[in-house]
Amino acid sequence: MIAKTHFAARIMLIALFCCNTALALPLVEKQTFTTKQFALFSGKVLPEVTVGWESYGELNEAKDNVILITHYFSGSSHAAGKYHEDDAQPGYWDAIIGPGKPIDTSKYFVISVDSLANLSAYDDNVITTGPASVNPETNKPYGLDFPVVTIRDFVNVQKAVLESLGIRKLHAVIGPSMGSMQAIDWASAYPQWVPRMVSVIGSGQSDAWTTAALEHWARPIRLDKNWNDGDYTRQEPPTEGLVSALMLITQQALHPAFFNQQGNSIDYQPVEPAPLEDIRQSHSIVNWLEQRARSRADKMDANHLLYLVRACQLFVAGHKDSLQQGLSTIKAKTLFMPAANDLLLMPYLSTRTYEQLRKAGKNSHYAELQGNLGHLEGVLDIQEQGEKLKSFLNDDK
Amino acid sequence: MIAKTHFAARIMLIALFCCNTALALPLVEKQTFTTKQFALFSGKVLPEVTVGWESYGELNEAKDNVILITHYFSGSSHAAGKYHEDDAQPGYWDAIIGPGKPIDTSKYFVISVDSLANLSAYDDNVITTGPASVNPETNKPYGLDFPVVTIRDFVNVQKAVLESLGIRKLHAVIGPSMGSMQAIDWASAYPQWVPRMVSVIGSGQSDAWTTAALEHWARPIRLDKNWNDGDYTRQEPPTEGLVSALMLITQQALHPAFFNQQGNSIDYQPVEPAPLEDIRQSHSIVNWLEQRARSRADKMDANHLLYLVRACQLFVAGHKDSLQQGLSTIKAKTLFMPAANDLLLMPYLSTRTYEQLRKAGKNSHYAELQGNLGHLEGVLDIQEQGEKLKSFLNDDK
Repeated sequence: MIAKTHFAARIMLIALFCCNTALALPLVEKQTFTTKQFALFSGKVLPEVTVGWESYGELNEAKDNVILITHYFSGSSHAAGKYHEDDAQPGYWDAIIGPGKPIDTSKYFVISVDSLANLSAYDDNVITTGPASVNPETNKPYGLDFPVVTIRDFVNVQKAVLESLGIRKLHAVIGPSMGSMQAIDWASAYPQWVPRMVSVIGSGQSDAWTTAALEHWARPIRLDKNWNDGDYTRQEPPTEGLVSALMLITQQALHPAFFNQQGNSIDYQPVEPAPLEDIRQSHSIVNWLEQRARSRADKMDANHLLYLVRACQLFVAGHKDSLQQGLSTIKAKTLFMPAANDLLLMPYLSTRTYEQLRKAGKNSHYAELQGNLGHLEGVLDIQEQGEKLKSFLNDDK
Repeated sequence: MIAKTHFAARIMLIALFCCNTALALPLVEKQTFTTKQFALFSGKVLPEVTVGWESYGELNEAKDNVILITHYFSGSSHAAGKYHEDDAQPGYWDAIIGPGKPIDTSKYFVISVDSLANLSAYDDNVITTGPASVNPETNKPYGLDFPVVTIRDFVNVQKAVLESLGIRKLHAVIGPSMGSMQAIDWASAYPQWVPRMVSVIGSGQSDAWTTAALEHWARPIRLDKNWNDGDYTRQEPPTEGLVSALMLITQQALHPAFFNQQGNSIDYQPVEPAPLEDIRQSHSIVNWLEQRARSRADKMDANHLLYLVRACQLFVAGHKDSLQQGLSTIKAKTLFMPAANDLLLMPYLSTRTYEQLRKAGKNSHYAELQGNLGHLEGVLDIQEQGEKLKSFLNDDK
């Protein structure tokens, strides 16, 4: 018995300190969900919806240990773990999702679903239905015949996935950025499902500023001659417009304090010879930003970007006439985590939502992410508030 | 004598309280300046430069009462006054330029010059040389054959205008935004000319962040199918690209606190029927922003915008290897006036420049503009720091 315990302890020590595999998730497998005649918030109907999803941890017998993660604009359901041992990176929130981590997969069944019109339509690890999907009525891609979809529709797809697994209630819903919109909409639209909601770098509504700001992401795509009113082929897509959009999104999701470090690392100089000599040349920092965007563009669909922009523009909690109305139905204990130097969804958007909930007498909490990344602090540095998140999730409601 | 004084006093009272003409500038007349074989900072030569300029107040005999105003990105030399009695608006800084105002035209000769590649190339009140000008070697518009021009070149054109009037020294140089870059470059490149320099909503250099951010203004134009590598006609210009650029510039020059007031005034709702029904429709706030941009676009030239972007991207004080080097030659007493909630040229850019000057033992001052406009605070609400500006200008150096 002593020898056996000693052996187990050694194995555990090796696991913890040598290979660290005790803290890693098992390899992740993408699942597929399909439903027919899916009714949208607009009243229109999609003949078929197919989306991908993935999960970490085990669903308990009572099916009441479920944490739903709702993803950001250019993200997917790959929130944690790796598909293959040799993946360069795990899912985006791997720092907080796993055994013993703040979102503890030894306790919770953590699940995430690819959005409709997911940006990365041509990523092998993303399964989505959107304007690039084949319209069963024409056997051609939908293009702009695809109906406008909303944050509520993403929520309803997630709800259908959960219901297909026999789940009728969440332990919590948590999401960053566009994922925060989904989390808030969940709490507003389905209050009986949601006892806990965490909004990271988010907003309770797209105000006039945000709706207009999102439009700048769409316009370069519509200007691209290959876009052709949304009717293009996989062989001749509007790549230049998409690259422009991604460059803008990337910069707006960062903060000068971080961005200028990148400038330093490529020895940025204002008076560079090439852009002084030739209007067609660019500064090295611009080339860096463009190359970064271009390397991501080939897995993405430009029309999908337009539809995601629209979904975000149309967002207000509960899709009601006002933020106040939308928040009024929320029963969840809520936590708002803006990033202090976020320039894309500035902290006032979280503060306003949090304060309205407090004013209405609801159980709402607030904790800012610090650091110099800007908006992306909520994706790349979320572990900074890991303890706060952990105690929020584990407290009784 | 008593009667005469009484009469003069009555005239003054009538002037002050009845028509208020004592505080208004006389009507302004645009002047033209031409020079040949103009050597640019890049080493290239423009065969001819023609620019407009205007002035307010009288040049004294010693020609030492000159205040130069350097204009912002979409501005012109029309800094104050009206061309006609029935002009809807006076020049942009009319609130601080005029008899008895902080920049007092009863003491100073105030002068401003249209930039090279001025954005409003087709405005009757703007005279500029840029890519839309006819290349005397081909008798066709330059297009992208126009050489890259820099903030230093704008400064050197201004210097040539001043020298043509027999002026050899300024009392002060003052400018907002891109005008601040010119003012700082003046102080660095020609320290003997500049005893006083005021940088409003400006920067001592375009850092990596700013250079990349400016690129987003250029890309929609290059995407427009009418742009055609800069070779387009006045009849078929790249208007859609230009409108996209102007929409982005307008929003970045404002702050949500102000922008959302506009949203309120058009009864902004996230869930609007038209954009929910049709991906080709937009929210009313987007339409407002677009209409505003479109109404300005027909007097502007898209290539000119690209060249102004480049001039700003290439800027560092003195066009030296570093900000520190550029600031080292400055002899002027300096004043930095960022806008506290500026999202376009954030206050850190002014602070950094101010602090480097202080560190080098120079006579530098700092005063923030408050208010909710964002960057445009420095154009539309500058009078808020009028007294500070007045005492800065009137103090002995």
